[in-house]
Amino acid sequence: MDERVREHAETLVDWSARIEAGDDVVLRVSEGAHDLAVAVAEQLGERGANLTTIYDSAEVGRAYTRAHDGDFDADPEYQLALYEGADSVLSLGGGRNTTAGADVPSDRRQALASARERIREARLATDWVSTVHPTRSLAQQAGMSYEAYQEFVYDAVLRDWESLADEMGRLKDRLDAGSEVRVVDGETDLTLSIENRIAVNSAASVAYDSHNLPSGEVFTAPAGVEGTVTFDVPMTIRDRRVRDVRLAFEGGEVVDFAAEQGESVIAEVLETDAGAKRLGELGIGMNRGIDRVTDNILFDEKMGGTVHMALGRAYGSNFPEGHVDEQNESAVHVDLIRWMDEGSRLEIDGEPVQEDGRFTWEG
Amino acid sequence: MDERVREHAETLVDWSARIEAGDDVVLRVSEGAHDLAVAVAEQLGERGANLTTIYDSAEVGRAYTRAHDGDFDADPEYQLALYEGADSVLSLGGGRNTTAGADVPSDRRQALASARERIREARLATDWVSTVHPTRSLAQQAGMSYEAYQEFVYDAVLRDWESLADEMGRLKDRLDAGSEVRVVDGETDLTLSIENRIAVNSAASVAYDSHNLPSGEVFTAPAGVEGTVTFDVPMTIRDRRVRDVRLAFEGGEVVDFAAEQGESVIAEVLETDAGAKRLGELGIGMNRGIDRVTDNILFDEKMGGTVHMALGRAYGSNFPEGHVDEQNESAVHVDLIRWMDEGSRLEIDGEPVQEDGRFTWEG
Repeated sequence: MDERVREHAETLVDWSARIEAGDDVVLRVSEGAHDLAVAVAEQLGERGANLTTIYDSAEVGRAYTRAHDGDFDADPEYQLALYEGADSVLSLGGGRNTTAGADVPSDRRQALASARERIREARLATDWVSTVHPTRSLAQQAGMSYEAYQEFVYDAVLRDWESLADEMGRLKDRLDAGSEVRVVDGETDLTLSIENRIAVNSAASVAYDSHNLPSGEVFTAPAGVEGTVTFDVPMTIRDRRVRDVRLAFEGGEVVDFAAEQGESVIAEVLETDAGAKRLGELGIGMNRGIDRVTDNILFDEKMGGTVHMALGRAYGSNFPEGHVDEQNESAVHVDLIRWMDEGSRLEIDGEPVQEDGRFTWEG
Repeated sequence: MDERVREHAETLVDWSARIEAGDDVVLRVSEGAHDLAVAVAEQLGERGANLTTIYDSAEVGRAYTRAHDGDFDADPEYQLALYEGADSVLSLGGGRNTTAGADVPSDRRQALASARERIREARLATDWVSTVHPTRSLAQQAGMSYEAYQEFVYDAVLRDWESLADEMGRLKDRLDAGSEVRVVDGETDLTLSIENRIAVNSAASVAYDSHNLPSGEVFTAPAGVEGTVTFDVPMTIRDRRVRDVRLAFEGGEVVDFAAEQGESVIAEVLETDAGAKRLGELGIGMNRGIDRVTDNILFDEKMGGTVHMALGRAYGSNFPEGHVDEQNESAVHVDLIRWMDEGSRLEIDGEPVQEDGRFTWEG
């Protein structure tokens, strides 16, 4: 076994999911994630956890969903019981074709998701963690060779998480103590209120209420956004390419927008509902193991030296008691990312925490 | 998709498992059975069944079992609930290495199986069906090319099951009405009492209390066995090759045995317990789609023109009320198979039902 696969499994089971003897674990395995599944099973066995392995195949899902033309039964009890009884759900992404479900009608997919809402909630109520095994299909999506992509993934996943969590804790403390963030970079000049918000230290561990491996970002929920921002990291949103999105805000709402490519996707998103015109998230990427764009949001938004903002729904974890009703609601949560370039500044209450894309403590 | 894979899936879902709308189905997928899983998922979707897909990977199982060195928890509730709530469990065999678990200590494997006894019972209480997807690994075990093995499997599986069930029903009726079977072939001359027994028409469908696809045998539980029998179909039993086993019976018990190869395995089996010296099953193979030995008991024992007998445990389904206490008990059930050659006879109460390996109605 590739030693990196074993270390990935150890990181997932120990740092991220904090598995202990007797834990009831559901392991969800994508088509291309077999090798990681074997390594994780070994770790779970060593710890004396219990194991139920789900085959999370995109092609099996596509065949089932396309063929099912009546109403879907709501939350079948036998499947609900599995997730309600589980302590942890570990999802190993990594398929063989990122567009395997491209010909599933979106209303059919949506109908199935709606009929499985309680099962989804039961899964999210566990100590769940999602990670990804490097596959050729994901390498292709990233425009990379397989070997280079493997190195990329392990650089991102096999961090000194304890130390990164400490560093992110410093930024969280600054955000928690502050009331306004300003992002300045070329044409971008944006101010965002973070009064009465809790920043989340997303350190790739359920112990930090963080459920992605890799992670490495600190995020909060901004309000009263004013100014202009451009997002220069190219992305795929709803299967369409989006590049150089520019948003102008007044009183917390988008009042103007443009994009070099994919402007119609942004228009669609903004028209979803009232909450889609507001920001649900300001995230600050701090994972220096992720140094390039791979068109996979799990990685891209964690890049050290980037910030991302999401149109739409905010996360409840950013709202302290007494301010829960301020949470932005929307059917969408669409992330957009920008590199913080030479000459850029990220300030909290007028004090820089990052300049030229480097945090002040990085020197 | 290979049309034969689709037909296999249809046969499994319709003929074998009798799936209906709203059925809660657990689909267990071996490492090499992906293509069949996709085809089965499509059939299940069309019928409006619910689907939970388990990854039944030999390598994941090996890694977990080897690494787990403490006691196994007894029947974890979350997994038990899945199987207790299921209507059908469809298992798709077909791995990538038939010896993937060769280095799992047998006591460890046994300990895990013992700790999952209620889960196993819950699975067997559903409308379960086991089948096999042709893989290169199974082709290798059979000593065949992949293409020839695929043809072999589909010849065995894609039968006119309705018609075969009718034909097997004729033999079942003869056995149910009879009181003694005699098998005569070369050195073999064996008489077996079948008084107060019910023969099972194993027609590859839960509607016939038959849970293997392919099937195609009629079996009963013999008693008072007298005479000598040789088994000329070579087999692998407990990872060892066994060939030309000869058993001599007096008063229902083995009193002498020999084998050209693997005699020590037979000795081991016979020494297990008292029941291991008695026959638990007499089966008569009737699937003419299976015309060669492939070292896979799911297929070999169903070959048209063979009979098989099992040392050890009998099946409860052969015992009518009032005779349940006559069921042979043992920790083992080891099948042995013989071809019925030119000059052979299979008689019920002195009347031939098969001569020269051909049933009387086959002409």
